[in-house]
Formats: sequence, C-alpha cells, structure tokens
Amino acid sequence: MDKVVGFIGLGIMGAPMAAHLLDAGFDVVTFVRRSPPDDSLVRKGIRVVANATELASAATVIITIVPDTADVLLVMKGEGGVFAGNLTGKLVIDMSSIAQAETVELHETALRLGAAFLDAPVSGGEVGAKAATLSIMAGGDETAFQRAMPIFSAMGKNITYVGGPGAGQAAKIANQIIVALTIEAVGEALLFASKLGADPARVRQALMGGLASSRILELHGDRMISRTFSPGFRIRLHRKDLGLALQGAKAHGISLPATALTHELMNSCIAHGLADLDHSALVQALERMSNHTVGEGQ
Amino acid sequence: MDKVVGFIGLGIMGAPMAAHLLDAGFDVVTFVRRSPPDDSLVRKGIRVVANATELASAATVIITIVPDTADVLLVMKGEGGVFAGNLTGKLVIDMSSIAQAETVELHETALRLGAAFLDAPVSGGEVGAKAATLSIMAGGDETAFQRAMPIFSAMGKNITYVGGPGAGQAAKIANQIIVALTIEAVGEALLFASKLGADPARVRQALMGGLASSRILELHGDRMISRTFSPGFRIRLHRKDLGLALQGAKAHGISLPATALTHELMNSCIAHGLADLDHSALVQALERMSNHTVGEGQ
Repeated sequence: MDKVVGFIGLGIMGAPMAAHLLDAGFDVVTFVRRSPPDDSLVRKGIRVVANATELASAATVIITIVPDTADVLLVMKGEGGVFAGNLTGKLVIDMSSIAQAETVELHETALRLGAAFLDAPVSGGEVGAKAATLSIMAGGDETAFQRAMPIFSAMGKNITYVGGPGAGQAAKIANQIIVALTIEAVGEALLFASKLGADPARVRQALMGGLASSRILELHGDRMISRTFSPGFRIRLHRKDLGLALQGAKAHGISLPATALTHELMNSCIAHGLADLDHSALVQALERMSNHTVGEGQ
Repeated sequence: MDKVVGFIGLGIMGAPMAAHLLDAGFDVVTFVRRSPPDDSLVRKGIRVVANATELASAATVIITIVPDTADVLLVMKGEGGVFAGNLTGKLVIDMSSIAQAETVELHETALRLGAAFLDAPVSGGEVGAKAATLSIMAGGDETAFQRAMPIFSAMGKNITYVGGPGAGQAAKIANQIIVALTIEAVGEALLFASKLGADPARVRQALMGGLASSRILELHGDRMISRTFSPGFRIRLHRKDLGLALQGAKAHGISLPATALTHELMNSCIAHGLADLDHSALVQALERMSNHTVGEGQ
C-alpha cells in the first residue's frame, strides 16, 4: 500500500488534485518548480524537497502533471529529475496531456530503471479537478493500474484502463478530437440554421432531445448563441492537442481529414487574435468565412 | 378545432403517424399514391378518396410526408394535387425533409390560395414515429403552429417552433449536419485511438462520462466497434440531407467546410457499395483512407 506520493506540477489542475490526495490521507511531497505550494496545501501538510530526484527517492508513487511534452521530459530525464532517483519498485504516473511517442519511450525508460509507468491523462478541467470528478484514462501495465486505483479514486470518478503504454494519451487525444470536431459541427449547423432564417436558440432546443444531442451542443452551442467566449478551455490549448493528434496520425500512417480541417480553423482563429478565447469561439472562423454571425438573422 | 386530417404519404414514417392521429380521435383521409393503406389503418377507420385535390377539399388540415422535394412538389402542385382543392382557411403541413428554397415557395403559394402553411420536418426515425416521440421542428406563421399543436402532440414529444417559412427545414438540416459530422468525429477518434494501441471499446467508455459524450458516441460509436452496420439510417439518405445542406449554403452564400468533407466521405462510401448501410458505416471511408480498421489493433 503506497503512502508517500511525490507530486510534480501544482498548477490549475495539479493543486486541487494534490489537495485531494492530502485529504485522502496520503503524504504528499513536492519540490518548487516555479513557485512554492500555496498556503492551503502547506496547511494540509505538503512537504517540499529540493528537486525531483529527492522527491522520487522519498515517494513510492510519483505523479507529474505539467503543461507539455518538453516539461515532462525535463522533469523526468533532466538534471535533478525523477529518473535520477531511486526508482526500484516505484510507480511513475504522468497525468499530463503530451505526445504519445515520447510517452512510450518514458514507459521503456522507467521499466529499465525498475519502475512501473502509467500514462494517465485526465479530462474534466479545473472544475473536475476541484470536485475530484476527473475522467482518468490510463495506459500501461494493468497491475500498475490496479496499484494506482486508490490514488486515482481520490482525484477522479470515471477511471478507465484503456490499454498498454501510450493508450492513455491516445484516448485523451481521441477525446480532444471529438470535442473539437463536435464544436465545429455545432458551429456549422447553427450558422446554417441562422442564415436560413431559423432562430438558433430554438433550433438548439429542438435538437437537444434527439440524435444530435451532446454536451457540446448543450454547453458550447449555448456559448455560440449567447456570445460567451470567455475561457473555459482556450483555443490555444486545444490547437496544441489537435497538433498532437496530427503528429500521432502522421507517425502511425493514418489520415484524419476533419481533424486537419479543424486544426486549420483554429489556426485561423489564432490569426485573428482569438487564441485565449474559449474553444467555442471556433465558430468565429466559420462566421468569418461565411460573412454571417450566428444569431444576427438572415 | 380541426377534426378531419388529410394524410399523404403512408410510408415507414407516415403509417404510424396516421395511426396515432386516428387513435387520438381525428378523422383521417388519404388517397392511394402507391399502395392502399394497410389493414390496421383501415380497421382504425382511415378513409380513402380519389386524389389529393379531393383530400384537400375534404379535410381542414392536410399533412404530407413523402421522400423528396420532387414528391412534395408533385403532390402539392401536380395534377389532382393539394393546391387544386378548396384551401380557404385550411392548414397545409409538410413534414417531409426537403429543400428549403422550394419550401419557402410553397408557403407563398399556399398563402395566395387562402391557406396557412407550416414546414414541420421530424427527427427520431421509425422508432420515434411508432412511439409517438418524434421531434418536430416547425417553421411558418406562429398562429398556424398553435393551431397545429393538437395534431403534432398526437405524433411527437419535443415540438418546437423555430421561426418563419422554411425555418423547420433549416433546423432539420442543421440536425442532419450535426449528426453526420459527429459520426465523422467519432470515427476519426476511434480510428486514432485504435491505431495508437488503445482499446476502442474502453476509450468509448472512458469518453462517455465527459465533454465528448453524445448520443452518437453512445450509439454509433458502439456500432463502429461491434461492426453493426445494418440500417438504421441509410448513408444514401443522409447524403441526400447533406446535399440539401450544401445546396442551401450555396444559395445563401455561406461556407460549410466540414459538411462538404463529410458529404465527400459519404460519396466514397457509396462508391464502395455502402449506400444502404447505416450512416455509422461512414467510418469505413476513414478506415479505407487510413488502411486500418477500428478494433483490429495496432
């Protein structure tokens, strides 16, 4: 039974996740990457060590949740990194959303060092992190997954083992593909309905009961109609995820035509200064192409 | 209060809809377009007249639900058609899914003949028609919509007034855009996850809890994984609807890039003899492009 968890990345997602681990009775160890842990984590008893190597030696489970592939590689393989610690019998879990190819390499390296590795990215955002209702998609060895369950259960609700090394990242990117392309779909549909004289709010209502219903139509469709584009999940970040999708597709020799199209529409949004709006603002790329705005009438 | 309803188009959708009207106490009149009404409708008391003109004169509300734009135009404006009947004070409701431009013209013609007109296409398919749970999206005059409510209520559940003449067709096509593009999105996501080594069934399960969740992921995602492509809703018919979308977009000067892409993928399916499979078989166009099948492993 693991008792001491090393936690690297106390950002918008990581801070509430670490707090839930402390609340669940785990000893949590961190180190200062950018800024020290906030007061509430200190009050809950988080310990601070000098670097990731010491952290890895002090803990039996090491969790990372940092912004991008480069950050994960640095914290794992860089000077003073996790992989320089004593990893025999340890479990390393990367919960960041990063490239799959590098993730598979991390699995192999950890294995050579005597540790198990899981890629376990999350969805559900800041709200899910705070409420401990994150969806967690884990790839790697299934025994390691079972070992991680008490930890995952403290932070998430819908926890799924999806396959071998890298499968968690594949699932997370699949999630981001569906979310982006469904936003695009809802954008085209509302633009069409609006231009042809229907009331987009009533159309959204009419469609919510049937086969077209989705969380995206409910939440992002409403944002497109009410013009509420404050983030939310930023276009900048979603473009990164679709970039990972296209990179993975290219590496594995498959073709994702609508993902490529939607990536380009996000590029167009960013060209017009919308990088930090919510991803529902993707509709603005369609609106610009069509010289018509959802809700402006025929 | 309307008592006598003329009903034209007793096909897979129309027959159960007419039965619900008879059950609700309406007198229903029809004429023989292709084959006489089936025994169960005869037992419920459906009356048969010689043609649509007589039908229009005998009823106060006339409903049409036929396959395509040409069918609606023929039954309305052709010899022995609805518009040759006495239409003063009558209500004509077209519940077919057809082109919006022609629908707007039908509104105008009916108005000149002293009748109100509604375009009120449905979604929910054969199952919804039988269970009287259809979604009905109506466009036209709002007073006419209120007049039609007792009739709509006998056949559907989610009944929405979406705007002026043609707005019902616009909403229905918007529905078909979302459904097609979400199927495409789920197809790309499951193909990606499968090729990168995740178990597509587990990925679908993991994604169902979150922002990627939709009726399409639930139903059509399952079909893609279990390879259950029996119809369902045929690709042939969905391609027709996306054709209406592109036709409407062109006529109104807007751009629907993902709708166009998905229309082409349906063309590719049809080129490979899949026209009569369920629209979830759209994934096969992606699979052919990528030389990989969802579920076959890496």
